Amino acid sequence: MSLNKKNWATKKALKVERINSVQHISHGKVIPTEQMVAALECLLHIGDRVILEGNNQKQADFLARALEKVDSTKVNNLHMIMPSVSLPEHMNIFEKGIASKLDFAFAGQQSVRISQMLEDGILEIGAVHTYVELYARLYCNLIPNVALVCGFKADKHGNLFCGGSTEDTPSLVEAPAFKDGIVIAQVNEIVDETTDLPRVDIPGDWIDFIVQADKPFYMEPLFTRDPRLIKDTHILMGMMAIKGIYAKHKVQTLNHGIGFNTAAIELLLPTYGESLGLKGKICKHWLLNPHPTLIPAIESGWVESVHSFGGELGMEEYIRERSDVFFTGPDGSMRSNRTMCQLAGQYAADMFIGATLQMDAEGNSSTVTRGRLSGFGGAPNMGHDPRGRRHSSEAWLDLITDKKSDVVKGRKLVVQMVETFQSGDTPTFVEKLDAVEVAHKTGMPIAPIMIYGDDVTHVLTEEGIAYLYMAEDLAERKLLIASVAGVTELGKQVSTEQVQLFREQGKVATPEDLGIRRSEANRSLLAAKNVSELVQWSEGLYQPPAKYRSW
Amino acid sequence: MSLNKKNWATKKALKVERINSVQHISHGKVIPTEQMVAALECLLHIGDRVILEGNNQKQADFLARALEKVDSTKVNNLHMIMPSVSLPEHMNIFEKGIASKLDFAFAGQQSVRISQMLEDGILEIGAVHTYVELYARLYCNLIPNVALVCGFKADKHGNLFCGGSTEDTPSLVEAPAFKDGIVIAQVNEIVDETTDLPRVDIPGDWIDFIVQADKPFYMEPLFTRDPRLIKDTHILMGMMAIKGIYAKHKVQTLNHGIGFNTAAIELLLPTYGESLGLKGKICKHWLLNPHPTLIPAIESGWVESVHSFGGELGMEEYIRERSDVFFTGPDGSMRSNRTMCQLAGQYAADMFIGATLQMDAEGNSSTVTRGRLSGFGGAPNMGHDPRGRRHSSEAWLDLITDKKSDVVKGRKLVVQMVETFQSGDTPTFVEKLDAVEVAHKTGMPIAPIMIYGDDVTHVLTEEGIAYLYMAEDLAERKLLIASVAGVTELGKQVSTEQVQLFREQGKVATPEDLGIRRSEANRSLLAAKNVSELVQWSEGLYQPPAKYRSW
Repeated sequence: MSLNKKNWATKKALKVERINSVQHISHGKVIPTEQMVAALECLLHIGDRVILEGNNQKQADFLARALEKVDSTKVNNLHMIMPSVSLPEHMNIFEKGIASKLDFAFAGQQSVRISQMLEDGILEIGAVHTYVELYARLYCNLIPNVALVCGFKADKHGNLFCGGSTEDTPSLVEAPAFKDGIVIAQVNEIVDETTDLPRVDIPGDWIDFIVQADKPFYMEPLFTRDPRLIKDTHILMGMMAIKGIYAKHKVQTLNHGIGFNTAAIELLLPTYGESLGLKGKICKHWLLNPHPTLIPAIESGWVESVHSFGGELGMEEYIRERSDVFFTGPDGSMRSNRTMCQLAGQYAADMFIGATLQMDAEGNSSTVTRGRLSGFGGAPNMGHDPRGRRHSSEAWLDLITDKKSDVVKGRKLVVQMVETFQSGDTPTFVEKLDAVEVAHKTGMPIAPIMIYGDDVTHVLTEEGIAYLYMAEDLAERKLLIASVAGVTELGKQVSTEQVQLFREQGKVATPEDLGIRRSEANRSLLAAKNVSELVQWSEGLYQPPAKYRSW
Repeated sequence: MSLNKKNWATKKALKVERINSVQHISHGKVIPTEQMVAALECLLHIGDRVILEGNNQKQADFLARALEKVDSTKVNNLHMIMPSVSLPEHMNIFEKGIASKLDFAFAGQQSVRISQMLEDGILEIGAVHTYVELYARLYCNLIPNVALVCGFKADKHGNLFCGGSTEDTPSLVEAPAFKDGIVIAQVNEIVDETTDLPRVDIPGDWIDFIVQADKPFYMEPLFTRDPRLIKDTHILMGMMAIKGIYAKHKVQTLNHGIGFNTAAIELLLPTYGESLGLKGKICKHWLLNPHPTLIPAIESGWVESVHSFGGELGMEEYIRERSDVFFTGPDGSMRSNRTMCQLAGQYAADMFIGATLQMDAEGNSSTVTRGRLSGFGGAPNMGHDPRGRRHSSEAWLDLITDKKSDVVKGRKLVVQMVETFQSGDTPTFVEKLDAVEVAHKTGMPIAPIMIYGDDVTHVLTEEGIAYLYMAEDLAERKLLIASVAGVTELGKQVSTEQVQLFREQGKVATPEDLGIRRSEANRSLLAAKNVSELVQWSEGLYQPPAKYRSW
């Protein structure tokens, strides 16, 4: 009854063919460093889908440099899959004609160049994703042929030690490893036997080739915030967050992103938070990179657990010595995992709190500005109400406003914490997001919104907190946002009487309503006022990168 | 400045203590089969959080039997974490006082007993979860002390081969392995060296102890549907689904659950689907267990890829010989992964399609019935609109009805496919879901809803399709549902004129509107009419379990 006698193992055959094509170069699984370009010219085929690992912290930079050097008459039209586009080489391969299509999740320093190359027709964008949806598609309709990834050490069997920066690697490797793709890992060091590795993060039979990089891979301390740069406004807003949101809803499980606002909160917990008697009642389980500014809260006994997306430079020894708090291996170094941490950030966290560059009248926000295609990263995955969640927590249930219906649902706290003006005179609250025009200009099917207004439950500015989840309808949501939008155009659209009414209804709270005097809100409340004090708190275990050492 | 000189590695110390406590029993990592009960009495402490692996397909049944035999004066008040509660032993441990609290995601045959024991006060429920949110919490506020899991083979270093049924194991093991917990794996066979394993699914240093089970673990062929039981109604509904939903919205990536409705669709693709010229245009990338009823579609060239949550008994050889379609290791056996497949089902899939036992007037549905606490499994994670999704697909964009706003969002197809009556006279459409009363009786904080009405985009019955995503408001959504609710009480609440208007507006489609004659809809359209024909399609590779062999 079968209609054909077709070959159903073409991918396995092609994999064997590719592996054989470098037998003159490789020694077992090891490719000599200086032969990497030649090996890529054999292993890569025209039009291949190629994962190039670029994460927040970790870059497969040697492999990116090697890829940039391949002969584009041999290897071209690659379809690149990159979680984070961070290095110049990531874009050079498009200019050199080696690659033509890009699927990605986040672009930091390369966001201007992506935008320009898209306009110039050098580059086709598949789609812009969040991290986890990019990983998800690797198992569905974006199955890769080749993955170029990064680890600290490997043994000759390919067993990979990724250490504190395991990050995306397991999710990137599993798809090609089990779909007859080729996996190549650069490492800083190759050892002989498995017992010479601190531990195994990815089994050797998932890895086809290893290569020792010409130099250790580059890591950026992206999540380090110097407390010296925290302003009194951040402290005021942090106090409001702690009292008017964290304590009010009894937030136990949470994610913090980078930003001085949330750094302020971390440094206020052992002081202001302690004075409110909140220790042990809020902020017990964290999903975030190992922020140095969390050290005082950890040392003061606020933090039961931290699971991380990735690592943070300088925190290695501190993590090793605080294994009761962090996820670490038998070797003592951290095991991060962006997929599982994003999953926990989506489904296990009571609260997401973030900042943004622009917010419109309905509460939609975006970090996209003209001339930049910066992508989504992880925020949208955590910064929405996860409608697939079914277990309850106190905070989640606390946001149910409908007390009458038989069928109700808790809600995740999605907090936007912004000053009414960005630096200079640029208002945060705008009539129309820049993202709308960027979408038109770059041909995106819809505007790239970071967080949708109907997912936002709280907007916090220096003016106060708007409890959006209490809004009866869209019209009221808009008025609530305007109530905390200060002297921006949007802020002027609500009357003083209306704001007063919202305050009486508990839908808006000013610092005064929360019993917070603006004069209290100053840097003396910070548990650590500079990086040196963070080091002291850590008993000398935190080893800040040179650029943060000013003492 | 640090406030204390506390010990921050108590968990690592406790782990060493636990491991030392069985040094008189274990040989390296190997615990002798007959000593397992004694080992558990040493390794488990009172009040421990213990993962006991129970999946859809795979059960750590030997470890469950061993746990049931421990002395409850030594080991008690365990807090059990079980994805799927399936075996009598899973509940016996509560009756015997060994365990007292349960967090779970799904309960099959034990759902009545859970409900009864909860009522009798023998058992405390932490929460009922979906699979992925239970895994997510293992990394946050439900960190386990011990995990009891299941694999096919291990070497003496603990490297684990999980084969086609890798399922939940990696996600369950990673949390305790990196939080100083104890991981014990039962396997069918222990080999000496890593090279004796077909492949490694979980690295050895994540596993503390292995034990050879007294007999191979039990697997149930849960996803096998005998085509002989597909009725003409299923076929009619399947034809409507293909033409009025799959083809209309150009669904490329999808999940199918178990059920005769979706089995009918799978068997109609090579016949009815082919006649509509849809091959290569829809249903290319699948996220589902390896359903035998998908074989004819695969053999006919409809299916580009299948990624699976777990395995299916009898499909092993077929999968091995169809590696272009399935995710397989170098050894040829499948690599399933429930977490990654759920992630893809949530974020990469255009469509979720499911059935339900009860649906209320607003479209909320539940499979909960009185006296059963059956849990959520995986459906809610896939059967909702994932608001964290940012990449586009044709189907996702096709559901945008607001063509004017600057800020819009695509939408996932969430299709509920139900007959208006369940077996007998029991209507599917009801005034109030049984789940509401179950929640009241068992003290659940909110009613256990499987799929919320405002996430549902299409309701398909034998009467027709209601395109709910087109509804202007809740009132219209209710009328649209009533339009396809047949002669149930709910169905009588909409006038013939209103239904006619909806049909003209394209908001409701009957078989006639779709050009489908009810007389066409019969079993002659099925690509395989029984299990024997599935075997023929598979060229003899599919080896159905004995209970499906009737020829």
